[in-house]
Amino acid sequence: MTPTTPHTVPVTVLGLGNLGQALVGVLLAQGHPTTVWNRSAHRAGPLVARGATAAATPAEAAAAGGLVVVAVLDHDAAREVLAGAGGALAGRTVVNLTTGGPEAARDLAALVTGQGAAYVDGAVYAVPQTVGTPDAFVLYSGDAAAYDAHRPVLDLFGEGTFVGDAPDLAAVHDTALLSGMYGMFAGFFQAVALADAEGIGAPAVTSALVRWLGAAADALPQFAQEIDRRAYATTTSNLRMNAVGLRDILAATEARGLPTDLLAPLLRLFEEQVAAGHAEASLSRTVESLRVPR
Amino acid sequence: MTPTTPHTVPVTVLGLGNLGQALVGVLLAQGHPTTVWNRSAHRAGPLVARGATAAATPAEAAAAGGLVVVAVLDHDAAREVLAGAGGALAGRTVVNLTTGGPEAARDLAALVTGQGAAYVDGAVYAVPQTVGTPDAFVLYSGDAAAYDAHRPVLDLFGEGTFVGDAPDLAAVHDTALLSGMYGMFAGFFQAVALADAEGIGAPAVTSALVRWLGAAADALPQFAQEIDRRAYATTTSNLRMNAVGLRDILAATEARGLPTDLLAPLLRLFEEQVAAGHAEASLSRTVESLRVPR
Repeated sequence: MTPTTPHTVPVTVLGLGNLGQALVGVLLAQGHPTTVWNRSAHRAGPLVARGATAAATPAEAAAAGGLVVVAVLDHDAAREVLAGAGGALAGRTVVNLTTGGPEAARDLAALVTGQGAAYVDGAVYAVPQTVGTPDAFVLYSGDAAAYDAHRPVLDLFGEGTFVGDAPDLAAVHDTALLSGMYGMFAGFFQAVALADAEGIGAPAVTSALVRWLGAAADALPQFAQEIDRRAYATTTSNLRMNAVGLRDILAATEARGLPTDLLAPLLRLFEEQVAAGHAEASLSRTVESLRVPR
Repeated sequence: MTPTTPHTVPVTVLGLGNLGQALVGVLLAQGHPTTVWNRSAHRAGPLVARGATAAATPAEAAAAGGLVVVAVLDHDAAREVLAGAGGALAGRTVVNLTTGGPEAARDLAALVTGQGAAYVDGAVYAVPQTVGTPDAFVLYSGDAAAYDAHRPVLDLFGEGTFVGDAPDLAAVHDTALLSGMYGMFAGFFQAVALADAEGIGAPAVTSALVRWLGAAADALPQFAQEIDRRAYATTTSNLRMNAVGLRDILAATEARGLPTDLLAPLLRLFEEQVAAGHAEASLSRTVESLRVPR
């Protein structure tokens, strides 16, 4: 079942949620013979009309493809589907794009390799509409040879980056990236609530906010260098200034009767660093308060 | 002292910190007669060498310009400098670019208008190196006529947006924008700490993170529309999915012995909305948990 001509690689997609459907759309558009399976069979209909083949079981679907892509709801669903496919996985490559943490990736890697298949884990950064466009990117980890062999197909989904051989590495990166995203969302919600308390509509504050977040994100690679070298020399944005600034923001937030829970923990980290004698150090030194387990 | 020919507007800059120096640099580059004052006089030296005139007191400096720009350390410093300028402010326009909250803006507006001057408050979004470039932008509020009259000069600093007549409006916007930025920084620190716990260096995780934050920020205007209309119809990213996702992230964070303080408060808001029956609503509905003072 190993693909020899990239243009006719048979691919199986297990799971036809938003992501799965988008992946199949990209595969069909490029002419790949694609076999699909979904718990609720009706989801396959529109894809079959576009050229996909529907299978009755995960095992039947897996048997049809050299590359088996899994995009189901969660870890439990992925485990059930892959356990169901069982021996049909032997000799194939499973690329699991189901959202799940590092523990889930390790568990599924053991299950899949136990069936004599290669395991690659992936975290997709895209909304369904951007799958297969230059806006999409995917972090992969696991079996490097299997990843390389299937790269021509996988690259159709979005720009791929292989982050390492451990099957859970993509999930570790994913956990980190989603933490960053949720922090940004928390800041957005706080910003909107604060503006709202003064009668400023969310759209009015958001356009400037998005612009400012883009500019502020440009500072992150410099922060990352400082953190990597653990060299936090004084910069134009030191911990003292930021502690003062954030304290003022929280005071203004409180003065409007709004909760400060979302950002108060960050101020505590700033203050911890200032109290430890690092008032003039770069703001990036904040990470030292998180780094050491306590 | 009202400027008649934009090219020769005499401008005064009070405060020569990083921002003040950058502002003076832009003014001198455009040939504006510029008078400067700083508490520590030695800072004026290099600017005088480039054509600025140094004044001995805030009052002397203010007397030289029709437009008086203030960029000092904080509210207390701005109050002291403007009180010191006193009667010399009469008939002039004061544009205060000192970082400070809404309360500070209202206080300084009262002080300045009490001296017969027009007050405009501004929040600058730039680092010193980007002042005067297309990357810089400034939110202004206060005396609209004075802002309009001085716009040719103010536009040299960065793209200006006038957000309203209340002198504290720019500061309210600023508090919101900085809240958003600090949320993003909190997420970044958490992301880096998590990657670090797995031996992944900060630069390795940051490049993908910056890319992903940019993509995720593109969702914010849609969220803002939903919030503005208080219409949180189901989307591809509902509260239930995000609560599950964030809970998994915090579990993975905890499993690595890292503190979860920075993002745990956001999960509590998600769970509050889910418990209130909004599991299928858009993630943007989270803001309702902040909106109502409690």
